[in-house]
Amino acid sequence: SNYVEEYENYFGTTLLDRRSNKRTDSKWLSEKQSHPATVYILFSDLSPLVTLGEGRESSQQPEVKLCRLHHKDVEECMNQTEECTLVFLGVELQYDENLMAACSGRGLQEEDGLVAWFALSIGSASAEKFKQKHEDCYFLHPPMPALLQLPEKEAGVVAQARSVLAWHSRYRFCPTCGSATKIEEGGYKKTCLKEDCPSLQGVHNTSYPRVDPVVIMQVIHPDGNHCLLGRQKRFPPGMFSCLAGFVEPGETIGDAVRREVEEETGVKVSHVQYVSCQPWPMPSSLMIGCLAVAVSTEIEVDKNEIEDARWFTREQVVEVLIKGNQHSFFVPPSRAIAHQLIKHWIGMNANL
Amino acid sequence: SNYVEEYENYFGTTLLDRRSNKRTDSKWLSEKQSHPATVYILFSDLSPLVTLGEGRESSQQPEVKLCRLHHKDVEECMNQTEECTLVFLGVELQYDENLMAACSGRGLQEEDGLVAWFALSIGSASAEKFKQKHEDCYFLHPPMPALLQLPEKEAGVVAQARSVLAWHSRYRFCPTCGSATKIEEGGYKKTCLKEDCPSLQGVHNTSYPRVDPVVIMQVIHPDGNHCLLGRQKRFPPGMFSCLAGFVEPGETIGDAVRREVEEETGVKVSHVQYVSCQPWPMPSSLMIGCLAVAVSTEIEVDKNEIEDARWFTREQVVEVLIKGNQHSFFVPPSRAIAHQLIKHWIGMNANL
Ligand SMILES: Nc1ncnc2c1ncn2[C@@H]1O[C@H](COP(=O)(O)O)[C@@H](O)[C@H]1O
Ligand SMILES: Nc1ncnc2c1ncn2[C@@H]1O[C@H](COP(=O)(O)O)[C@@H](O)[C@H]1O
Repeated sequence: SNYVEEYENYFGTTLLDRRSNKRTDSKWLSEKQSHPATVYILFSDLSPLVTLGEGRESSQQPEVKLCRLHHKDVEECMNQTEECTLVFLGVELQYDENLMAACSGRGLQEEDGLVAWFALSIGSASAEKFKQKHEDCYFLHPPMPALLQLPEKEAGVVAQARSVLAWHSRYRFCPTCGSATKIEEGGYKKTCLKEDCPSLQGVHNTSYPRVDPVVIMQVIHPDGNHCLLGRQKRFPPGMFSCLAGFVEPGETIGDAVRREVEEETGVKVSHVQYVSCQPWPMPSSLMIGCLAVAVSTEIEVDKNEIEDARWFTREQVVEVLIKGNQHSFFVPPSRAIAHQLIKHWIGMNANL
Repeated sequence: SNYVEEYENYFGTTLLDRRSNKRTDSKWLSEKQSHPATVYILFSDLSPLVTLGEGRESSQQPEVKLCRLHHKDVEECMNQTEECTLVFLGVELQYDENLMAACSGRGLQEEDGLVAWFALSIGSASAEKFKQKHEDCYFLHPPMPALLQLPEKEAGVVAQARSVLAWHSRYRFCPTCGSATKIEEGGYKKTCLKEDCPSLQGVHNTSYPRVDPVVIMQVIHPDGNHCLLGRQKRFPPGMFSCLAGFVEPGETIGDAVRREVEEETGVKVSHVQYVSCQPWPMPSSLMIGCLAVAVSTEIEVDKNEIEDARWFTREQVVEVLIKGNQHSFFVPPSRAIAHQLIKHWIGMNANL
């Protein structure tokens, strides 16, 4: 029963259908760009424009929501000389009946009832103007943990948009020849402008957005009653989490798990089991969550990689996770896959 | 029991320990480069230098093996003006006792008994010279399906080497500013040479080898007794395989499976289950193999993406896979994850 979506998946739940076939339909894209029902979400320096949500009194965390803008709001900004980047995100899953009715009245020929969404990244000058005009709106910065305050469905949209925009911001030039590039296919392709560049021959990945697979693993002690958690220097004091690391070329998921655990802590792992995954927009990772069974127990921390790693008993983890007792240490919030993995282990163990 | 390595994993089984901590130890790396026990494998145009293996009479497929060269063989070539790229691959899993004994005799101070491996990519002029000198060796080209003829453990080494070398060949320039770059950390890092380039600030992925996660899925008909296989234009005539596609930014594995199946064939999928994975060095993918349950059956092929897609009965698949009856169609060879996924489905279904 290892279904890929057994868990709540923050950043993986979205209100859009990507409709990738429309990315090459430039007529449709340009019509949707100026369509009054189209939704624009704004980014400045990879941070989304948000406003405070309702019901934030009741819950512990303040909730924010995306500012959903329209063509009239962004028109001026898009005509500015300052560079801006546009990415087609998809269409709302709910087909808009009202839109169809309203628009047939307006005599539009080809109204398809689809509400398109675009992400628009603007420069700092335009961003300043925007904030002055829309007093209740602000750019959510720094991104973490602030992005975790978004409603679940909006988080998926932001994950998609932020990852693609981060790719555009860091991959401006052709890596094969160093020339300038042009953006195509609604923001999902980048083509070298030099006519005889080798990147234009054959199929390679230089033209497409990057997604980095990362393994993140709950490592179980051979006794089955302890798990191995570590902390990176940049974690807030007291926080411990699952070990993690980037998958390297030529590695399986299991290889990557065993290599990373041994590199970071000296602990040897044998069996690895897939549990669940999560997109993580910092800038564009696919977190692959696993359970891993240790076959050695001595910890030797590699201080270049992490700051500390310890075996925690099941009781300690239950205290912190279920009872909310955070005296000794705490773990990442429930919207992070690390939290879900740790919880999965407790549940699993309890069922034995 | 979804263990990540339940299956034979061609390209995922290796005879090396990567020892990534040695990548920053330039003294150790340079000593190993000229060490007489060190193994070099050669690449030209991303094809490895091989020779014919033994025992090829008995089996159906010709078997080839890597030419394992030594410092004296490649020294001249590395001093050539023509550009060559060196990647540290790791050390042999088997610690070499003989090496220790022999070398302590030679009075070497710091012999650690580790047999290091490097991949060396050479230009076409050097490649020509090499072929003339070593008559029984040749570069394995085109790579597919030829790479599948390597012994399993060498295939893992080639997958690692080819992926990293493909990254160097297509990512020569800094994608952030277009400047030249320099190679560091044994071939696993690339740094922009422009002092104030934004790529040098913060942690981003521009300096590291790319790995593209791909979903590949065995789609099961709602009746449980048919599966959906498709063919791409570039497949040999008669071959059908599992559907597959690149994971996009902000997607979960399940999202990617559902999107790709619907895009390519119009079939809707609900549950997705992880089965196994495989590194695929064309140029650097991580194939994530899944079972996916269809909730619709009508096929509408997107001719831009694939050429054909059909439901096949379990009996048809058993005929082809187990009985080797390839009259009607055939599937990829057993060393490809598609084959393993199709086989997994047959096995699973039989157990119900
Ligand atoms: N990372 C990527 N690398 C190569 N092709 C990609 C990538 N992402 C999307 N694509 C698209 O996938 C097609 C190749 O797919 P395939 O036939 O599976 O190799 C290309 O023509 C592109 O349109
Ligand atoms: N694709 C990648 N993106 C970013 N960092 C990488 C990548 N591959 C390897 N690294 C290394 O991983 C470190 C960051 O890891 P982390 O602390 O998990 O973000 C960097 O300092 C790099 O040494």
